[in-house]
Amino acid sequence: MSITTLSVPLADDFHTHLRQGALMRAVTPLLKTSGVATAYVMPNLKPPVTTTEQALAYKAELEALAPNVNFLMTLYLTPELTPEEIRKAAKAGVAGVKSYPRGVTTNSDSGIESYTAYYEVFRAMEEVDMVLNLHGEIPSDAEEGVCVMNAEERFLKHLEQLHRDFPNLRIVLEHATTKAAVDMVKSLGATVGCSITVHHLSLIVDDWAGQCHHFCKPVAKYPHDREALRAIVKEGHPRFFLGTDSAPHPRHTKESSTAVAGVFTTPLVLPYLATILESFGALDKLQTFACENGRAFYKLPTRASTAPVATLFKQEYVVPKEYTYTDDEGHERSVVPFLAGKKLAWTLKA
Amino acid sequence: MSITTLSVPLADDFHTHLRQGALMRAVTPLLKTSGVATAYVMPNLKPPVTTTEQALAYKAELEALAPNVNFLMTLYLTPELTPEEIRKAAKAGVAGVKSYPRGVTTNSDSGIESYTAYYEVFRAMEEVDMVLNLHGEIPSDAEEGVCVMNAEERFLKHLEQLHRDFPNLRIVLEHATTKAAVDMVKSLGATVGCSITVHHLSLIVDDWAGQCHHFCKPVAKYPHDREALRAIVKEGHPRFFLGTDSAPHPRHTKESSTAVAGVFTTPLVLPYLATILESFGALDKLQTFACENGRAFYKLPTRASTAPVATLFKQEYVVPKEYTYTDDEGHERSVVPFLAGKKLAWTLKA
Repeated sequence: MSITTLSVPLADDFHTHLRQGALMRAVTPLLKTSGVATAYVMPNLKPPVTTTEQALAYKAELEALAPNVNFLMTLYLTPELTPEEIRKAAKAGVAGVKSYPRGVTTNSDSGIESYTAYYEVFRAMEEVDMVLNLHGEIPSDAEEGVCVMNAEERFLKHLEQLHRDFPNLRIVLEHATTKAAVDMVKSLGATVGCSITVHHLSLIVDDWAGQCHHFCKPVAKYPHDREALRAIVKEGHPRFFLGTDSAPHPRHTKESSTAVAGVFTTPLVLPYLATILESFGALDKLQTFACENGRAFYKLPTRASTAPVATLFKQEYVVPKEYTYTDDEGHERSVVPFLAGKKLAWTLKA
Repeated sequence: MSITTLSVPLADDFHTHLRQGALMRAVTPLLKTSGVATAYVMPNLKPPVTTTEQALAYKAELEALAPNVNFLMTLYLTPELTPEEIRKAAKAGVAGVKSYPRGVTTNSDSGIESYTAYYEVFRAMEEVDMVLNLHGEIPSDAEEGVCVMNAEERFLKHLEQLHRDFPNLRIVLEHATTKAAVDMVKSLGATVGCSITVHHLSLIVDDWAGQCHHFCKPVAKYPHDREALRAIVKEGHPRFFLGTDSAPHPRHTKESSTAVAGVFTTPLVLPYLATILESFGALDKLQTFACENGRAFYKLPTRASTAPVATLFKQEYVVPKEYTYTDDEGHERSVVPFLAGKKLAWTLKA
């Protein structure tokens, strides 16, 4: 028996970067071919999204570009964020607050250095049941032996501590890349979830060694780490769910002496995912992982039985080499998608 | 007290790639500003250097480009290499045989898969006292958990075995990058040496994450690995010595979706090395590491007291952004040196 057609509800991507300006206008409409109907949007713009007003204005821009998508908005955790703003944001439907350790990824210069200064904000979030999204890496520090390969593992004690101090605060460890992270999240309570990207189910360290389009933060790790990510998806563990961390960058900022971090998966989320899950025998977990687990953790309403579905056909699809657009300065640019020019085993018909 | 001028004998680089054709003609003359007078030349050309004739013809080409440099030539270990060829090569002054595990680095498609097939050749090398140079990595294999981060450590048992089976064969573990490698070489006998590059004394994994000009094989590893390399140089251990593994590639092959591996240090070997050694308090080991240890291991004649010296001044020097040349097809190309555009603390006046 072989499966040749699959229907699942349009999926939920609980971590995506849709950018701003021309790049936002180029990438957001590509959600149409992704098989995704819920996009949980990161706030690391320039300047970062730190107020309810900014979040709502940003949401309106995105809705104009992709009217059928449910955009869930987030605020960027900074010292200026107050409990009052949290309560206001919650009322306005802002779903979460994103914490970036300072300097570890794109536009994270406003990131945090220690969590204790934010405990009042976290208390307010716990009260209003808003989600805390953690970029789970500590900054590299050669003196302390911290580098991109162990920055996530060394962060985990902070996750553990936060969960102990705020057991009712829903916390998501974003884009897990290590067995250590999977084990830690499993060991914690029902309020701790974990997003996993498409690309981290596919890549290991070798794949970004010299390959700038596979370079992202956190970096892909060892084979046994990828194996742990695959195993937890295969197991169907309810607290692990899809968050693509799709992060578009213009080609010239990747193919340069100093590449920016990010893998761009937005246009083909479900075709990528079906292809990769099938490769390790977990195609039967596509719906659980991409359409159910995250929804339950985020307490989104149950889908109506008439909700639109994504239909996937077992039919080769060649990933476009690039998506072109004109940037804010009028230059012709392009964004290179994950696995550009490679064949996927599954094709989406929405 | 501060040291502002330093004189050392012109150094010995016991591992370098000088390429062929236009690139060879571009990079070899740059030895003039490197402070290096002995260049141990790798045989991974297209086709690989596998015979004494090829090695001598290649040497003549290099000598024409840099008449004052002593070029020590090597053969590429392939199944076709015979004990007879080894004896012939030794008589002709060929210094060593380089072994590449298949597929792990630039032009290594002809590399070895298992050592036992080469034991007759190794016996001949032991008899004529020729050196075996090992690229010490096993090929990545996700099923077996092997990736670029542990490929060297997992190779070390092969080094140990070879040394046990050929205790009188001089073996060099090339371009060590890990504490495990340093510890292994230390633990073995007097016939096992180890080369260390300039860039591995400087870089860790973070530095090649997204930075193609720092990407090389073996990749730079963890902070504690770099620390072990620095410590063994600082200790002045006699079996550890300079081998730059300088590996020029045209800029467009680095700044692309799939960068080739290699860091280019030839033009400024001693200024780089003085700057980096000083940064971790080992400037006093410059001469031991770069001018004495390798020479002793390779049994080169003692230098005459009138041998030319390199004089280094404590004077800022900005590394050129690139070295331009015209390639074999007539295209204008450039090679980007290590730390391009950055300041070095030491300037060479040869």
